[in-house]
Amino acid sequence: MALNEVSSNASFEGYQKVFSHQSSELKCEMKFSVYIPPQAESQNVPVLYYLSGLTCTEQNFIGKGGAQKYAAQEGIMIVGPDTSPRGVNIEGEDDSWDFGSGAGFYVDATEPKWKNNYRMYSYVTKELPAVIQSNFPVIANKQSITGHSMGGHGALICTLKNPGLYKSVSAFAPICNPMACPWGKKGFTGYLGPNKDAWKEYDSCELVKKYSGPALDILIDQGTSDQFYPNQLLPENLVEASKGTNVKISLRMQEDYDHSYYFISTFMEDHIKHHAKYLKA
Amino acid sequence: MALNEVSSNASFEGYQKVFSHQSSELKCEMKFSVYIPPQAESQNVPVLYYLSGLTCTEQNFIGKGGAQKYAAQEGIMIVGPDTSPRGVNIEGEDDSWDFGSGAGFYVDATEPKWKNNYRMYSYVTKELPAVIQSNFPVIANKQSITGHSMGGHGALICTLKNPGLYKSVSAFAPICNPMACPWGKKGFTGYLGPNKDAWKEYDSCELVKKYSGPALDILIDQGTSDQFYPNQLLPENLVEASKGTNVKISLRMQEDYDHSYYFISTFMEDHIKHHAKYLKA
Repeated sequence: MALNEVSSNASFEGYQKVFSHQSSELKCEMKFSVYIPPQAESQNVPVLYYLSGLTCTEQNFIGKGGAQKYAAQEGIMIVGPDTSPRGVNIEGEDDSWDFGSGAGFYVDATEPKWKNNYRMYSYVTKELPAVIQSNFPVIANKQSITGHSMGGHGALICTLKNPGLYKSVSAFAPICNPMACPWGKKGFTGYLGPNKDAWKEYDSCELVKKYSGPALDILIDQGTSDQFYPNQLLPENLVEASKGTNVKISLRMQEDYDHSYYFISTFMEDHIKHHAKYLKA
Repeated sequence: MALNEVSSNASFEGYQKVFSHQSSELKCEMKFSVYIPPQAESQNVPVLYYLSGLTCTEQNFIGKGGAQKYAAQEGIMIVGPDTSPRGVNIEGEDDSWDFGSGAGFYVDATEPKWKNNYRMYSYVTKELPAVIQSNFPVIANKQSITGHSMGGHGALICTLKNPGLYKSVSAFAPICNPMACPWGKKGFTGYLGPNKDAWKEYDSCELVKKYSGPALDILIDQGTSDQFYPNQLLPENLVEASKGTNVKISLRMQEDYDHSYYFISTFMEDHIKHHAKYLKA
Protein backbone atom coordinates (compact mmCIF):
# COMPACT_ATOMS: atom_id res chain seq x y z
CA MET A 1 0.00 0.00 0.00
CA ALA A 2 1.41 3.38 -0.97
CA LEU A 3 2.52 5.77 1.73
CA ASN A 4 2.39 9.53 1.36
CA GLU A 5 4.92 11.54 3.35
CA VAL A 6 3.01 14.39 4.96
CA SER A 7 5.92 15.98 6.82
CA SER A 8 9.53 15.38 7.77
CA ASN A 9 11.50 17.26 10.40
CA ALA A 10 15.04 16.60 11.51
CA SER A 11 15.00 15.82 15.23
CA PHE A 12 17.81 14.58 17.49
CA GLU A 13 19.91 13.40 14.54
CA GLY A 14 16.98 11.40 13.15
CA TYR A 15 13.70 12.38 11.52
CA GLN A 16 10.23 12.90 12.85
CA LYS A 17 7.93 12.07 9.97
CA VAL A 18 4.19 11.83 9.39
CA PHE A 19 2.68 9.64 6.69
CA SER A 20 -0.80 9.08 5.35
CA HIS A 21 -2.13 5.90 3.80
CA GLN A 22 -5.39 4.28 2.84
CA SER A 23 -6.36 1.88 5.63
CA SER A 24 -8.13 -1.30 4.58
CA GLU A 25 -9.32 -1.99 8.13
CA LEU A 26 -10.73 1.49 8.71
CA LYS A 27 -11.70 2.24 5.10
CA CYS A 28 -10.40 5.78 5.20
CA GLU A 29 -7.17 7.72 4.90
CA MET A 30 -5.19 7.57 8.12
CA LYS A 31 -2.14 9.45 9.32
CA PHE A 32 0.56 8.06 11.56
CA SER A 33 3.85 9.37 12.87
CA VAL A 34 7.22 7.65 12.65
CA TYR A 35 10.32 8.77 14.50
CA ILE A 36 13.28 7.34 12.60
CA PRO A 37 16.34 7.22 14.84
CA PRO A 38 19.80 7.88 13.35
CA GLN A 39 20.75 4.21 13.73
CA ALA A 40 18.12 3.29 11.11
CA GLU A 41 20.34 4.72 8.39
CA SER A 42 22.65 1.73 8.67
CA GLN A 43 20.74 -1.06 10.42
CA ASN A 44 17.30 -2.41 11.22
CA VAL A 45 15.94 -1.18 14.52
CA PRO A 46 13.24 -2.24 17.01
CA VAL A 47 9.95 -0.38 17.03
CA LEU A 48 7.82 1.02 19.84
CA TYR A 49 4.15 1.83 19.23
CA TYR A 50 2.65 4.76 21.09
CA LEU A 51 -1.14 4.96 21.35
CA SER A 52 -2.64 8.35 22.15
CA GLY A 53 -5.57 9.29 24.33
CA LEU A 54 -9.01 10.78 23.78
CA THR A 55 -9.20 13.75 21.39
CA CYS A 56 -5.61 13.31 20.21
CA THR A 57 -4.34 12.93 16.66
CA GLU A 58 -0.93 11.68 15.58
CA GLN A 59 0.41 15.18 16.39
CA ASN A 60 0.13 15.50 20.18
CA PHE A 61 2.74 12.92 21.07
CA ILE A 62 5.32 13.99 18.52
CA GLY A 63 5.06 17.66 19.46
CA LYS A 64 4.84 17.34 23.23
CA GLY A 65 5.96 13.87 24.30
CA GLY A 66 9.69 14.52 24.24
CA ALA A 67 10.42 10.93 23.16
CA GLN A 68 12.72 11.61 20.23
CA LYS A 69 15.83 12.22 22.30
CA TYR A 70 15.59 8.85 24.03
CA ALA A 71 14.52 7.00 20.90
CA ALA A 72 17.66 8.39 19.25
CA GLN A 73 19.82 7.38 22.19
CA GLU A 74 18.46 3.84 22.24
CA GLY A 75 18.06 3.37 18.50
CA ILE A 76 14.32 2.68 18.63
CA MET A 77 11.76 3.69 16.02
CA ILE A 78 8.51 5.08 17.44
CA VAL A 79 5.23 4.79 15.55
CA GLY A 80 2.16 6.75 16.63
CA PRO A 81 -1.20 6.17 14.96
CA ASP A 82 -4.21 8.46 15.09
CA THR A 83 -6.92 7.60 17.63
CA SER A 84 -9.86 6.76 15.35
CA PRO A 85 -10.99 6.62 11.75
CA ARG A 86 -11.43 10.10 10.29
CA GLY A 87 -14.03 11.58 8.00
CA VAL A 88 -16.01 8.38 7.50
CA ASN A 89 -19.31 10.25 7.67
CA ILE A 90 -21.05 8.20 10.33
CA GLU A 91 -23.93 10.21 11.77
CA GLY A 92 -22.92 11.59 15.15
CA GLU A 93 -19.22 10.71 14.83
CA ASP A 94 -18.19 14.24 15.83
CA ASP A 95 -20.81 14.83 18.52
CA SER A 96 -18.74 13.72 21.54
CA TRP A 97 -15.12 14.23 22.52
CA ASP A 98 -15.09 10.83 24.22
CA PHE A 99 -16.83 8.74 21.56
CA GLY A 100 -16.50 8.55 17.77
CA SER A 101 -13.80 10.69 16.12
CA GLY A 102 -10.71 10.84 18.31
CA ALA A 103 -12.05 8.10 20.57
CA GLY A 104 -11.82 4.71 18.85
CA PHE A 105 -10.95 2.93 22.12
CA TYR A 106 -8.76 0.43 20.24
CA VAL A 107 -11.61 -2.04 19.78
CA ASP A 108 -13.13 -3.68 16.71
CA ALA A 109 -16.69 -2.41 16.80
CA THR A 110 -19.56 -4.86 16.36
CA GLU A 111 -22.50 -2.46 16.44
CA PRO A 112 -23.86 -2.03 12.89
CA LYS A 113 -23.35 1.71 12.72
CA TRP A 114 -19.65 1.56 13.62
CA LYS A 115 -18.38 -1.88 12.67
CA ASN A 116 -17.42 -1.04 9.11
CA ASN A 117 -14.85 1.57 10.10
CA TYR A 118 -14.15 1.50 13.82
CA ARG A 119 -11.62 -1.33 13.83
CA MET A 120 -8.75 0.32 15.65
CA TYR A 121 -7.79 -2.93 17.39
CA SER A 122 -7.07 -4.71 14.14
CA TYR A 123 -5.52 -1.59 12.66
CA VAL A 124 -3.06 -1.20 15.52
CA THR A 125 -2.18 -4.87 16.02
CA LYS A 126 -2.15 -6.05 12.40
CA GLU A 127 -2.49 -3.56 9.57
CA LEU A 128 -0.19 -0.84 10.83
CA PRO A 129 2.64 -3.19 11.89
CA ALA A 130 2.51 -4.78 8.43
CA VAL A 131 2.76 -1.33 6.85
CA ILE A 132 5.71 -0.50 9.08
CA GLN A 133 7.52 -3.75 8.35
CA SER A 134 7.06 -3.29 4.61
CA ASN A 135 8.25 0.29 4.49
CA PHE A 136 10.78 0.91 7.25
CA PRO A 137 14.02 -0.72 8.43
CA VAL A 138 12.63 -2.54 11.48
CA ILE A 139 13.58 -5.84 13.07
CA ALA A 140 10.71 -8.28 12.64
CA ASN A 141 9.19 -9.26 16.00
CA LYS A 142 11.11 -6.67 17.97
CA GLN A 143 8.18 -4.48 18.88
CA SER A 144 6.79 -3.04 22.09
CA ILE A 145 3.84 -0.81 22.91
CA THR A 146 2.93 2.05 25.21
CA GLY A 147 0.26 4.71 25.39
CA HIS A 148 -1.55 7.35 27.38
CA SER A 149 -5.02 7.18 28.98
CA MET A 150 -7.30 5.57 26.33
CA GLY A 151 -4.06 4.70 24.54
CA GLY A 152 -2.66 3.15 27.70
CA HIS A 153 -5.75 0.94 27.74
CA GLY A 154 -5.01 0.16 24.09
CA ALA A 155 -1.41 -0.80 24.84
CA LEU A 156 -2.49 -3.05 27.70
CA ILE A 157 -5.23 -4.92 25.83
CA CYS A 158 -3.19 -5.33 22.65
CA THR A 159 -0.48 -7.00 24.71
CA LEU A 160 -2.71 -9.12 26.92
CA LYS A 161 -4.73 -10.36 23.93
CA ASN A 162 -1.64 -11.29 21.93
CA PRO A 163 0.89 -13.10 24.11
CA GLY A 164 4.38 -12.62 22.74
CA LEU A 165 3.45 -10.07 20.10
CA TYR A 166 5.07 -7.26 22.08
CA LYS A 167 8.32 -7.61 23.96
CA SER A 168 7.17 -5.14 26.60
CA VAL A 169 4.31 -2.83 27.48
CA SER A 170 3.99 0.30 29.57
CA ALA A 171 1.41 3.01 30.02
CA PHE A 172 0.93 6.57 31.22
CA ALA A 173 -2.27 6.98 33.27
CA PRO A 174 -4.08 4.20 31.42
CA ILE A 175 -7.78 3.41 31.57
CA CYS A 176 -7.29 0.10 33.33
CA ASN A 177 -10.83 -1.15 33.83
CA PRO A 178 -13.03 0.36 31.12
CA MET A 179 -16.04 -1.80 32.06
CA ALA A 180 -16.10 -0.03 35.41
CA CYS A 181 -15.60 3.60 34.37
CA PRO A 182 -17.82 6.15 32.60
CA TRP A 183 -15.57 6.56 29.52
CA GLY A 184 -15.33 2.83 29.02
CA LYS A 185 -19.01 2.13 29.58
CA LYS A 186 -19.96 4.77 27.02
CA GLY A 187 -17.41 3.60 24.47
CA PHE A 188 -18.05 -0.11 24.89
CA THR A 189 -21.82 0.32 24.80
CA GLY A 190 -21.53 2.33 21.63
CA TYR A 191 -19.05 0.15 19.79
CA LEU A 192 -19.81 -3.31 21.24
CA GLY A 193 -23.44 -3.13 22.33
CA PRO A 194 -24.97 -3.92 25.71
CA ASN A 195 -23.64 -7.47 26.18
CA LYS A 196 -20.91 -7.23 28.77
CA ASP A 197 -19.36 -10.54 27.80
CA ALA A 198 -18.13 -8.76 24.67
CA TRP A 199 -16.72 -5.97 26.81
CA LYS A 200 -14.54 -8.43 28.72
CA GLU A 201 -12.52 -9.07 25.58
CA TYR A 202 -11.25 -5.49 25.76
CA ASP A 203 -10.87 -4.94 29.49
CA SER A 204 -7.39 -5.35 30.96
CA CYS A 205 -8.71 -6.41 34.35
CA GLU A 206 -10.56 -9.30 32.70
CA LEU A 207 -7.83 -10.16 30.21
CA VAL A 208 -5.04 -10.27 32.78
CA LYS A 209 -6.81 -13.04 34.70
CA LYS A 210 -6.76 -15.40 31.72
CA TYR A 211 -3.40 -14.32 30.28
CA SER A 212 -1.14 -17.30 29.68
CA GLY A 213 1.76 -15.86 27.69
CA PRO A 214 5.32 -14.96 28.65
CA ALA A 215 5.75 -13.19 31.98
CA LEU A 216 5.23 -9.45 31.78
CA ASP A 217 6.50 -6.55 33.88
CA ILE A 218 4.22 -3.66 33.03
CA LEU A 219 5.42 -0.17 33.95
CA ILE A 220 2.55 2.20 34.72
CA ASP A 221 2.95 5.80 35.85
CA GLN A 222 -0.04 7.54 37.40
CA GLY A 223 -0.14 11.11 38.68
CA THR A 224 -1.84 11.71 42.01
CA SER A 225 -3.27 15.05 40.81
CA ASP A 226 -4.67 13.57 37.62
CA GLN A 227 -8.17 14.97 37.20
CA PHE A 228 -9.35 11.58 35.95
CA TYR A 229 -7.85 9.56 38.79
CA PRO A 230 -9.17 7.35 40.16
CA ASN A 231 -12.67 7.32 38.59
CA GLN A 232 -11.83 6.88 34.94
CA LEU A 233 -8.47 5.14 35.29
CA LEU A 234 -8.71 2.66 38.19
CA PRO A 235 -5.12 1.37 38.12
CA GLU A 236 -5.52 -0.28 41.52
CA ASN A 237 -8.14 -2.58 39.97
CA LEU A 238 -5.53 -3.85 37.54
CA VAL A 239 -2.97 -4.38 40.28
CA GLU A 240 -5.58 -6.39 42.19
CA ALA A 241 -6.69 -8.40 39.15
CA SER A 242 -3.10 -9.31 38.28
CA LYS A 243 -2.44 -10.99 41.63
CA GLY A 244 -1.56 -14.62 41.22
CA THR A 245 -0.78 -14.22 37.50
CA ASN A 246 2.59 -13.92 35.79
CA VAL A 247 1.84 -10.29 34.96
CA LYS A 248 3.52 -7.88 37.33
CA ILE A 249 2.07 -4.37 37.42
CA SER A 250 4.76 -1.89 38.47
CA LEU A 251 2.47 0.99 39.35
CA ARG A 252 4.31 4.17 40.27
CA MET A 253 2.19 6.90 41.84
CA GLN A 254 3.74 10.24 40.88
CA GLU A 255 2.92 12.93 43.38
CA ASP A 256 1.37 16.15 42.04
CA TYR A 257 1.43 15.11 38.39
CA ASP A 258 -1.73 15.46 36.30
CA HIS A 259 -3.05 13.92 33.06
CA SER A 260 -1.20 16.23 30.65
CA TYR A 261 1.82 15.90 28.42
CA TYR A 262 3.80 17.69 31.13
CA PHE A 263 3.35 14.47 33.09
CA ILE A 264 4.02 12.22 30.10
CA SER A 265 7.19 14.02 29.00
CA THR A 266 8.58 13.93 32.54
CA PHE A 267 8.53 10.14 32.63
CA MET A 268 9.09 9.42 28.94
CA GLU A 269 12.79 8.65 29.45
CA ASP A 270 11.96 5.95 31.99
CA HIS A 271 9.46 4.34 29.65
CA ILE A 272 11.76 4.33 26.63
CA LYS A 273 14.52 2.81 28.75
CA HIS A 274 12.07 0.21 30.07
CA HIS A 275 11.26 -0.85 26.52
CA ALA A 276 14.89 -0.69 25.41
CA LYS A 277 15.74 -3.28 28.04
CA TYR A 278 13.43 -5.78 26.34
CA LEU A 279 13.75 -4.68 22.72
CA LYS A 280 17.53 -4.81 22.80
CA ALA A 281 17.87 -7.96 24.92
CA MET B 1 0.72 44.21 40.53
CA ALA B 2 -1.47 41.19 41.13
CA LEU B 3 -0.74 37.97 39.29
CA ASN B 4 -3.41 35.49 38.35
CA GLU B 5 -2.34 31.85 38.07
CA VAL B 6 -3.82 30.54 34.84
CA SER B 7 -2.43 27.01 35.01
CA SER B 8 0.02 24.89 36.94
CA ASN B 9 1.36 21.50 35.86
CA ALA B 10 3.93 19.40 37.66
CA SER B 11 6.88 18.89 35.31
CA PHE B 12 10.29 17.34 35.99
CA GLU B 13 9.93 17.74 39.76
CA GLY B 14 9.10 21.41 39.36
CA TYR B 15 6.08 23.28 38.04
CA GLN B 16 5.23 24.71 34.65
CA LYS B 17 2.92 27.61 35.36
CA VAL B 18 1.19 30.30 33.35
CA PHE B 19 0.17 33.62 34.85
CA SER B 20 -1.75 36.63 33.63
CA HIS B 21 -1.32 40.21 34.77
CA GLN B 22 -2.26 43.71 33.75
CA SER B 23 0.72 45.20 31.90
CA SER B 24 1.32 48.91 32.41
CA GLU B 25 3.63 49.10 29.38
CA LEU B 26 1.24 47.32 27.00
CA LYS B 27 -2.01 48.47 28.61
CA CYS B 28 -3.63 45.09 28.36
CA GLU B 29 -3.77 41.76 30.12
CA MET B 30 -0.74 39.65 29.27
CA LYS B 31 0.10 36.03 29.90
CA PHE B 32 3.54 34.65 30.56
CA SER B 33 4.91 31.24 31.47
CA VAL B 34 7.21 30.41 34.36
CA TYR B 35 8.97 27.11 34.82
CA ILE B 36 9.79 26.83 38.50
CA PRO B 37 12.59 24.32 39.04
CA PRO B 38 12.58 22.11 42.14
CA GLN B 39 15.53 24.01 43.61
CA ALA B 40 13.32 27.11 43.94
CA GLU B 41 11.51 25.51 46.84
CA SER B 42 14.51 26.09 49.08
CA GLN B 43 16.65 28.78 47.46
CA ASN B 44 16.65 31.68 45.03
CA VAL B 45 17.54 30.67 41.49
CA PRO B 46 18.76 32.40 38.31
CA VAL B 47 16.27 33.14 35.56
CA LEU B 48 16.39 32.64 31.80
CA TYR B 49 14.01 34.57 29.56
CA TYR B 50 12.79 32.85 26.40
CA LEU B 51 11.31 35.03 23.65
CA SER B 52 9.09 33.29 21.10
CA GLY B 53 8.77 33.83 17.38
CA LEU B 54 6.08 35.09 15.04
CA THR B 55 2.54 33.79 15.66
CA CYS B 56 3.48 32.20 18.98
CA THR B 57 1.89 32.74 22.36
CA GLU B 58 3.33 31.79 25.74
CA GLN B 59 2.18 28.21 25.03
CA ASN B 60 4.41 27.02 22.16
CA PHE B 61 7.67 26.96 24.05
CA ILE B 62 6.33 25.32 27.18
CA GLY B 63 4.54 22.57 25.27
CA LYS B 64 7.15 21.82 22.64
CA GLY B 65 10.50 23.28 23.68
CA GLY B 66 11.55 20.48 26.00
CA ALA B 67 13.40 22.91 28.28
CA GLN B 68 11.95 21.85 31.62
CA LYS B 69 14.19 18.84 32.08
CA TYR B 70 17.37 20.89 31.73
CA ALA B 71 16.02 23.82 33.73
CA ALA B 72 15.31 21.33 36.53
CA GLN B 73 18.78 19.81 36.26
CA GLU B 74 20.49 23.19 36.37
CA GLY B 75 18.15 24.90 38.81
CA ILE B 76 17.16 27.71 36.46
CA MET B 77 13.75 29.37 36.25
CA ILE B 78 12.52 30.02 32.70
CA VAL B 79 10.13 32.85 31.91
CA GLY B 80 8.38 33.07 28.55
CA PRO B 81 6.29 36.11 27.64
CA ASP B 82 3.71 36.32 24.87
CA THR B 83 4.84 37.88 21.58
CA SER B 84 2.68 41.02 21.46
CA PRO B 85 -0.08 42.90 23.22
CA ARG B 86 -3.42 41.12 22.89
CA GLY B 87 -6.92 42.39 22.29
CA VAL B 88 -6.03 46.08 22.27
CA ASN B 89 -8.43 46.78 19.42
CA ILE B 90 -6.07 48.54 17.05
CA GLU B 91 -7.56 48.48 13.57
CA GLY B 92 -5.79 45.84 11.50
CA GLU B 93 -3.93 44.24 14.42
CA ASP B 94 -5.08 40.78 13.39
CA ASP B 95 -4.73 41.18 9.61
CA SER B 96 -1.19 39.76 9.23
CA TRP B 97 0.59 36.84 10.81
CA ASP B 98 3.88 38.76 10.68
CA PHE B 99 2.72 42.15 11.99
CA GLY B 100 0.47 43.21 14.86
CA SER B 101 -0.88 40.46 17.12
CA GLY B 102 1.72 37.74 17.65
CA ALA B 103 4.41 39.88 16.03
CA GLY B 104 5.49 42.66 18.36
CA PHE B 105 9.14 42.43 17.24
CA TYR B 106 10.35 43.40 20.72
CA VAL B 107 10.46 47.11 19.88
CA ASP B 108 8.84 50.16 21.47
CA ALA B 109 6.66 51.47 18.66
CA THR B 110 6.77 55.15 17.79
CA GLU B 111 4.12 55.28 15.09
CA PRO B 112 0.95 56.88 16.48
CA LYS B 113 -1.31 53.92 15.82
CA TRP B 114 0.86 51.45 17.70
CA LYS B 115 2.91 53.38 20.22
CA ASN B 116 0.40 53.25 23.05
CA ASN B 117 0.45 49.46 23.29
CA TYR B 118 3.26 47.93 21.24
CA ARG B 119 6.07 48.38 23.76
CA MET B 120 7.39 44.84 23.92
CA TYR B 121 10.98 46.04 24.32
CA SER B 122 10.23 47.83 27.57
CA TYR B 123 7.92 45.06 28.67
CA VAL B 124 10.56 42.39 28.23
CA THR B 125 13.56 44.30 29.57
CA LYS B 126 11.92 46.21 32.41
CA GLU B 127 8.32 45.49 33.38
CA LEU B 128 8.38 41.71 33.24
CA PRO B 129 11.71 41.31 35.10
CA ALA B 130 10.35 43.56 37.85
CA VAL B 131 7.24 41.39 38.07
CA ILE B 132 9.37 38.27 38.25
CA GLN B 133 11.66 39.68 40.93
CA SER B 134 8.71 40.75 43.04
CA ASN B 135 6.85 37.49 42.84
CA PHE B 136 9.31 34.62 42.45
CA PRO B 137 12.43 33.38 44.26
CA VAL B 138 15.03 34.64 41.81
CA ILE B 139 18.56 35.94 42.32
CA ALA B 140 18.67 39.62 41.45
CA ASN B 141 20.91 40.28 38.43
CA LYS B 142 21.34 36.61 37.56
CA GLN B 143 19.37 36.63 34.36
CA SER B 144 20.03 35.52 30.80
CA ILE B 145 17.99 35.54 27.62
CA THR B 146 17.34 33.37 24.58
CA GLY B 147 14.72 33.11 21.87
CA HIS B 148 13.63 31.77 18.51
CA SER B 149 13.40 33.60 15.19
CA MET B 150 11.75 36.97 15.96
CA GLY B 151 12.41 36.07 19.60
CA GLY B 152 16.06 35.38 18.81
CA HIS B 153 16.23 38.90 17.41
CA GLY B 154 14.60 40.06 20.63
CA ALA B 155 17.15 38.27 22.80
CA LEU B 156 20.04 39.72 20.80
CA ILE B 157 18.88 43.33 20.82
CA CYS B 158 17.83 43.29 24.47
CA THR B 159 21.35 42.16 25.36
CA LEU B 160 23.25 44.43 22.99
CA LYS B 161 21.24 47.47 24.07
CA ASN B 162 21.73 46.79 27.77
CA PRO B 163 25.34 45.85 28.48
CA GLY B 164 25.57 43.70 31.59
CA LEU B 165 21.82 43.27 32.04
CA TYR B 166 22.00 39.64 30.93
CA LYS B 167 24.78 37.28 31.90
CA SER B 168 24.51 35.45 28.59
CA VAL B 169 22.50 35.32 25.39
CA SER B 170 21.75 32.65 22.81
CA ALA B 171 19.32 32.22 19.97
CA PHE B 172 17.66 29.62 17.77
CA ALA B 173 17.49 30.72 14.12
CA PRO B 174 17.29 34.41 15.02
CA ILE B 175 16.38 37.27 12.71
CA CYS B 176 19.85 38.79 12.80
CA ASN B 177 19.53 41.77 10.50
CA PRO B 178 15.90 42.89 10.44
CA MET B 179 16.67 46.06 8.44
CA ALA B 180 17.74 43.82 5.58
CA CYS B 181 14.94 41.21 5.53
CA PRO B 182 11.28 41.32 4.53
CA TRP B 183 9.89 40.52 8.00
CA GLY B 184 12.01 43.20 9.62
CA LYS B 185 11.33 45.85 7.01
CA LYS B 186 7.59 45.33 7.34
CA GLY B 187 7.68 45.32 11.13
CA PHE B 188 10.03 48.26 11.53
CA THR B 189 8.18 50.38 8.96
CA GLY B 190 4.92 49.67 10.73
CA TYR B 191 6.07 50.23 14.29
CA LEU B 192 8.91 52.74 13.82
CA GLY B 193 8.06 54.57 10.61
CA PRO B 194 10.19 55.11 7.51
CA ASN B 195 13.27 56.68 9.15
CA LYS B 196 15.94 54.01 9.09
CA ASP B 197 18.02 55.69 11.79
CA ALA B 198 15.31 54.58 14.19
CA TRP B 199 15.53 51.03 12.84
CA LYS B 200 19.23 50.85 13.70
CA GLU B 201 18.36 50.99 17.37
CA TYR B 202 16.74 47.58 17.04
CA ASP B 203 19.03 45.81 14.57
CA SER B 204 21.67 43.47 15.99
CA CYS B 205 24.05 44.06 13.11
CA GLU B 206 24.04 47.77 13.89
CA LEU B 207 24.02 47.42 17.66
CA VAL B 208 26.93 44.98 17.78
CA LYS B 209 29.23 47.49 16.11
CA LYS B 210 28.77 50.03 18.88
CA TYR B 211 28.48 47.58 21.78
CA SER B 212 30.90 48.46 24.57
CA GLY B 213 29.82 46.20 27.42
CA PRO B 214 31.31 43.02 28.87
CA ALA B 215 32.60 40.50 26.35
CA LEU B 216 29.86 38.20 25.03
CA ASP B 217 29.96 34.71 23.57
CA ILE B 218 26.64 34.31 21.78
CA LEU B 219 25.54 30.79 20.90
CA ILE B 220 23.40 30.67 17.75
CA ASP B 221 22.03 27.50 16.16
CA GLN B 222 20.75 27.68 12.60
CA GLY B 223 19.31 24.80 10.58
CA THR B 224 20.46 24.46 6.99
CA SER B 225 16.98 23.32 5.88
CA ASP B 226 15.24 26.21 7.56
CA GLN B 227 12.66 27.55 5.11
CA PHE B 228 13.51 31.11 6.21
CA TYR B 229 17.27 30.75 5.86
CA PRO B 230 19.04 32.74 4.68
CA ASN B 231 16.61 35.45 3.48
CA GLN B 232 14.80 36.33 6.67
CA LEU B 233 17.48 35.36 9.17
CA LEU B 234 20.87 36.40 7.77
CA PRO B 235 23.08 35.08 10.59
CA GLU B 236 26.22 35.51 8.48
CA ASN B 237 25.59 39.26 8.49
CA LEU B 238 25.83 39.27 12.27
CA VAL B 239 29.02 37.21 12.25
CA GLU B 240 30.50 39.72 9.80
CA ALA B 241 29.29 42.76 11.75
CA SER B 242 30.75 41.41 15.00
CA LYS B 243 34.28 41.19 13.66
CA GLY B 244 36.68 43.38 15.61
CA THR B 245 34.26 43.70 18.54
CA ASN B 246 34.29 41.87 21.86
CA VAL B 247 31.16 39.99 20.85
CA LYS B 248 31.88 36.50 19.62
CA ILE B 249 29.14 34.86 17.56
CA SER B 250 29.36 31.08 17.86
CA LEU B 251 27.20 30.22 14.88
CA ARG B 252 26.54 26.50 14.52
CA MET B 253 25.01 25.41 11.23
CA GLN B 254 22.88 22.33 11.90
CA GLU B 255 22.50 20.17 8.84
CA ASP B 256 18.96 19.25 7.78
CA TYR B 257 17.24 21.05 10.64
CA ASP B 258 14.35 23.41 9.88
CA HIS B 259 12.66 26.31 11.67
CA SER B 260 10.34 24.21 13.85
CA TYR B 261 10.27 23.21 17.49
CA TYR B 262 11.75 19.86 16.41
CA PHE B 263 14.90 21.89 15.74
CA ILE B 264 14.61 23.95 18.90
CA SER B 265 14.02 20.99 21.21
CA THR B 266 16.98 19.12 19.73
CA PHE B 267 19.40 21.84 20.78
CA MET B 268 17.64 23.10 23.90
CA GLU B 269 19.94 21.17 26.22
CA ASP B 270 23.02 22.87 24.74
CA HIS B 271 21.47 26.30 25.17
CA ILE B 272 20.39 25.76 28.76
CA LYS B 273 23.86 24.47 29.60
CA HIS B 274 25.41 27.48 27.84
CA HIS B 275 23.40 29.80 30.05
CA ALA B 276 24.01 27.74 33.19
CA LYS B 277 27.74 28.26 32.72
CA TYR B 278 27.25 32.02 33.09
CA LEU B 279 24.29 32.10 35.45
CA LYS B 280 25.93 29.80 37.96
CA ALA B 281 29.45 31.21 37.66
